[in-house]
Amino acid sequence: MSRTLTHEPAEKVLPAAREESSATKGGRLDPLFRARSVALVGASTRVDCVGRQILDNLLAFGYRGRIYPVNPKATEIRGLRCYPSVRAIEEAPELAVLVVPRAAVLPVVGDCLARGVNGLVVITGGFRELDAEGARLESELRQRAAGAGIPLLGPNCMGLFNADPDVRLDLTFSPVPPRPGHIAFLSHSGALAAWVLTQAQTTGLGFSLFASLGNEAGITHRDALEYAAADPLTRVIVLYLETFEEPQAFLRVARRVTRAKPVVCLKGGRTETGARAASSHTGALATSSRAFEAVLRQSGVVLVDTTEEMLNVALGFSRLPLPRGRRVRLLTNAGGPGVLATDQLVRRGLELPSLSPERQAELREFVTPRAPVVNPVDLTVEGTPLMYGSAARLLLDDEATDALFVLFVEPPRVAGPEVLRELQQAISGATKPVVAAFPAQDELRRQAPEGNFALIDYPESAAAVLGALAEYADWKKRPLGRRRCFRVNRALVAKLIAKAHSIGRSVLDPEESLTVLRAYGIPVARYALVRTRAELERRARRVGFPLALKVVSPEILHKTEVGGVILNIAHQTELKKEYRRLTERLQAQGLARQLRGVLLQEMVNRDRELILGFRRDAQGTPLLLVGLGGILVEALEAVTVRVLPVTDQDVREMLREMPGARMLGAFRGLRPVAKATLEESLLRLAQLAEDFPGIGEIDVNPFVVSEERLACKAVDARILLRS
Amino acid sequence: MSRTLTHEPAEKVLPAAREESSATKGGRLDPLFRARSVALVGASTRVDCVGRQILDNLLAFGYRGRIYPVNPKATEIRGLRCYPSVRAIEEAPELAVLVVPRAAVLPVVGDCLARGVNGLVVITGGFRELDAEGARLESELRQRAAGAGIPLLGPNCMGLFNADPDVRLDLTFSPVPPRPGHIAFLSHSGALAAWVLTQAQTTGLGFSLFASLGNEAGITHRDALEYAAADPLTRVIVLYLETFEEPQAFLRVARRVTRAKPVVCLKGGRTETGARAASSHTGALATSSRAFEAVLRQSGVVLVDTTEEMLNVALGFSRLPLPRGRRVRLLTNAGGPGVLATDQLVRRGLELPSLSPERQAELREFVTPRAPVVNPVDLTVEGTPLMYGSAARLLLDDEATDALFVLFVEPPRVAGPEVLRELQQAISGATKPVVAAFPAQDELRRQAPEGNFALIDYPESAAAVLGALAEYADWKKRPLGRRRCFRVNRALVAKLIAKAHSIGRSVLDPEESLTVLRAYGIPVARYALVRTRAELERRARRVGFPLALKVVSPEILHKTEVGGVILNIAHQTELKKEYRRLTERLQAQGLARQLRGVLLQEMVNRDRELILGFRRDAQGTPLLLVGLGGILVEALEAVTVRVLPVTDQDVREMLREMPGARMLGAFRGLRPVAKATLEESLLRLAQLAEDFPGIGEIDVNPFVVSEERLACKAVDARILLRS
Repeated sequence: MSRTLTHEPAEKVLPAAREESSATKGGRLDPLFRARSVALVGASTRVDCVGRQILDNLLAFGYRGRIYPVNPKATEIRGLRCYPSVRAIEEAPELAVLVVPRAAVLPVVGDCLARGVNGLVVITGGFRELDAEGARLESELRQRAAGAGIPLLGPNCMGLFNADPDVRLDLTFSPVPPRPGHIAFLSHSGALAAWVLTQAQTTGLGFSLFASLGNEAGITHRDALEYAAADPLTRVIVLYLETFEEPQAFLRVARRVTRAKPVVCLKGGRTETGARAASSHTGALATSSRAFEAVLRQSGVVLVDTTEEMLNVALGFSRLPLPRGRRVRLLTNAGGPGVLATDQLVRRGLELPSLSPERQAELREFVTPRAPVVNPVDLTVEGTPLMYGSAARLLLDDEATDALFVLFVEPPRVAGPEVLRELQQAISGATKPVVAAFPAQDELRRQAPEGNFALIDYPESAAAVLGALAEYADWKKRPLGRRRCFRVNRALVAKLIAKAHSIGRSVLDPEESLTVLRAYGIPVARYALVRTRAELERRARRVGFPLALKVVSPEILHKTEVGGVILNIAHQTELKKEYRRLTERLQAQGLARQLRGVLLQEMVNRDRELILGFRRDAQGTPLLLVGLGGILVEALEAVTVRVLPVTDQDVREMLREMPGARMLGAFRGLRPVAKATLEESLLRLAQLAEDFPGIGEIDVNPFVVSEERLACKAVDARILLRS
Repeated sequence: MSRTLTHEPAEKVLPAAREESSATKGGRLDPLFRARSVALVGASTRVDCVGRQILDNLLAFGYRGRIYPVNPKATEIRGLRCYPSVRAIEEAPELAVLVVPRAAVLPVVGDCLARGVNGLVVITGGFRELDAEGARLESELRQRAAGAGIPLLGPNCMGLFNADPDVRLDLTFSPVPPRPGHIAFLSHSGALAAWVLTQAQTTGLGFSLFASLGNEAGITHRDALEYAAADPLTRVIVLYLETFEEPQAFLRVARRVTRAKPVVCLKGGRTETGARAASSHTGALATSSRAFEAVLRQSGVVLVDTTEEMLNVALGFSRLPLPRGRRVRLLTNAGGPGVLATDQLVRRGLELPSLSPERQAELREFVTPRAPVVNPVDLTVEGTPLMYGSAARLLLDDEATDALFVLFVEPPRVAGPEVLRELQQAISGATKPVVAAFPAQDELRRQAPEGNFALIDYPESAAAVLGALAEYADWKKRPLGRRRCFRVNRALVAKLIAKAHSIGRSVLDPEESLTVLRAYGIPVARYALVRTRAELERRARRVGFPLALKVVSPEILHKTEVGGVILNIAHQTELKKEYRRLTERLQAQGLARQLRGVLLQEMVNRDRELILGFRRDAQGTPLLLVGLGGILVEALEAVTVRVLPVTDQDVREMLREMPGARMLGAFRGLRPVAKATLEESLLRLAQLAEDFPGIGEIDVNPFVVSEERLACKAVDARILLRS
């Protein structure tokens, strides 16, 4: 079962889609983000409209390029010459930004293409998200840009900005200017960006790039992600997504990007009602939240649950080096907040090991007598700014420290700003991350050090930031794994599927399903199909006693409910008797005509049962799943999933994170199961699903597992075909 | 099975412990919180110490009573006459506050008692949390106060305050003065209180009472909880707990308090590492987090997970009326934040029903064309302050609105303060809660309306506030339920337990355990114990075929692992054969001597299996549990628990919230199970555990459930006795 045809690195087997890799090649999006000249079509003399605000922002942010306002009703706006149309501009502007009524968009695009612009940003809304006519216009817009081979951002978006000092391009209509920094923010919601920029004024967040993705008629979040990955000023990429229509394409791109830079993702519309709200606003399709969460795990993207967590984590990544390990030192003057931070750090997988006796002795020399110095180091209400500085230095110097966590609450006569100053000196030059939580008001936040230091409002939020850093640091060390390609009997499966199709059946019965699994090298319990009474004895000999007898009928899905399963038949006599009773029972219930036969199957030890499965979500995204077996799985939904394709590393992680995973280890006197066999079976199942797009669903339930490699096998299975 | 001896309201059967009910009777804590005169022992002339800061705070907050600084080395501090000792004060001060070295505490307490003070606050630390000598001193301190019959707060605490305009007593050393308001904050951490008071300066939080509980040598969080419940200015009580040593006592008090006022609780030390950190700081014992969470659910206390959530929820309760139902109207000018808020509202159990066509038409008259008005109502970037005001009025007037949720992010030229002003007018007089999320900086927060309005920083956090309000509103409507007392055969159980004790056994075998269950009216599968081969046939006839054969031995806990269970035995011949094989196998394994006998048991339909159980956590707190049955329960920990005593209502809720609960309803072609039988069995199990404190653990696994009342029964059970 371990013969493998190929053993290729995942990157090779997961080829980048062509459209994505070309996005950054030669800076395909440079005409958007680094345009040397911009035509603003719809620039307005009226101060209360979007076309004017964009012009104001362009000027206020200190754009390094040339600006061409276009407005047939004006000759000059804010001291700039105004053009009646794009065609009238003396040079071909590199980028055109459209803030015109919907009906005017396509004619203006015609002008732009005629004049030779290299990029388009369409702010105007009222397309796919509004009505059928909008969808038609959007489709034409997309085709025009694609035909000309130029990038298009929007429509229905809030523009973009690039804070690179060589560019300083702000094409948004945000009333708040971006603070320059190292966060690239890519968003399906312009309003959320406005929220973020407002918060940034006091929280220390700084941005390198921003793109409001709108309806994604042209460039998608994947294109923008790749562009930001290549941008030298960007240290962390933050995504706000409301649609997630091509999870597999995202997986290909994101797995590559996260090798280089952290990606943080917040998703709107994860509940059904939320998705409906999103749809009214960007015309998004509902996404399976399972597929979404699986893809993020598979691609090392840090999932955040709230806007606030998104901003805190972005601040952390934009300022701090990654920790080398999970050992945190906590320095505080506040007991309770220290306890709350500890709880949260531990929940996020971090550790708070005790300080060595030597370090404790060093601390004892200058802290308050009786202050706890094991970890947390609690300076107590008597802690001074100088003690903070000295303790921070000492803890950062300790080689068993991977990250420093500082808490401070104002005791009498010790001011936050003084503590910040001492900390700033102590951490300068440190290569370990320093996260701090102070009860931070705007004034104090503004005084926080700019360097390797992230100041967060609350102990628990700060702990979450350190958790995200550690999670990503682990991901970077984690191998991507390899896809495996096994030698299988593909032809047999093709034949079985074709046969089912030819007679209009969309469900393979258990015997057929087990045969398909066997053809793909997945171990199955010995079985034999018995069509007539005459075959019974011979087939039973082949399977061996004790055995189980199961009714086989495409119409009877839940066999146990019709009494169609008899277990533990010990010998031929008993078998004959049970066979007779079964057929009589089915006749009595009027089900005999649907009977295809009965399945004889070896009895196996079912101490530990799993379900291995394959599903497609509502969008057709292929999902591999594993969980505890038996019917209770349905009640608990205790499975874990991955989007195909998967690597061996992905499958190993599924088995680690599966609810109830500890049952696979030493459990209630049983020894750990043969993991390698289980992993390989999952990989073979994945290969089966990928080889046959006509398969809609596979249930292997139960797949029994055991410490014995040879005792791991599928006992029952069901395959559904797509119609 | 439904015969019931008594049917008493829970209040009657859950008597308040004497110490709690006496806490508020006649305002036992008034000498602390409403003292008319205070002796401050340890008042200092040096400005940089706690004893001076307290005096400064007393003066700054405008204390209405008389202040007596006590310090033998001074004659006057801040213009007040200073006394050499408490005995030297001309009147008996109502309250004495001690800020003296540990060694001086007991002598000073002696002075205070001699002078006739009525209350003590001991700020001084270094007691139980520090060392054995401290524990001894603390114990003596406790006895002195108890002996004198006066309330003691502390030691090792940060004092208290009462913001009642008639009192204005601030005995803390917080550098930040409390903003008066309606929140009572009771905290095991003084530093957290300092954090909270700092944040309150900009977030609109206002306080009625504060108590730093310290080591709880005298008054406990339960006493303070009852006092705050009776305080007329307090609208919400917020608890920060690090210890939780008497869950049952808390349950008694909190169930009563939450009928009148909301209680919000944050707990530090819920992880093991966190508990260790807490222990170094208050000398707390580790608490079972299961018991903690169960008690909060049973008593209607709102559990929060972070400091920030605690403050947001407290703000909500202190300002807003409770919603009558779960129907929320969302008013926004920002799509993305609206989607995120919707997700979070739905997760918190709220609903966003569509507006009626009439209401939509009314909105259409003044909002931007194309603006979505179904719910969310999205004013879009064109929304004006006036539109906010009009829409808020209209939505609040709609009888199908239970709460209004407002989001706002600054578009060009629309300022937050103007929107706040319009909202303020719109909501004045409204009796429905209004929660708002703006990207709020300190400046804007200060301009938020004071009335029925809670301004929160982020959409998701604001949704959590509304969720907490709705949860508590539901709790107030929920019946407390009744305890039931069934007629049982208590004597038989007492005899069995005594017998086991007499021969030094601490485990009742399955046959004994089933007998105990039967004595308490819990249905069990028919069974018979067979001690000798001679009894086999007769006993089997009594049980009936098919039956199961199970080994009974106190030493063999996991029967399946020694092959000690044979199922589906069809007739006497087979039974004899299997009996012989079993005894031979046990002999071969050297286990035959431990055999007490074999159990014959009717075969039952095990489609749906539960575990019903009873446990004590490390502190001895009695817990009732229910979950899915079978061995996988252990791997999944898929059970739900309650602390005893329980009411019928508690048990109903356990069955609703149990992981996999939907398996109790219509499930995979099976009909809903006989819930009443299951509920009664759980209540009878609880009665058993309460009647016999000598029982340490009960496992009823499996308890099979079915649509047929008579088919619900225990199949296997095990009872452990405490040694």
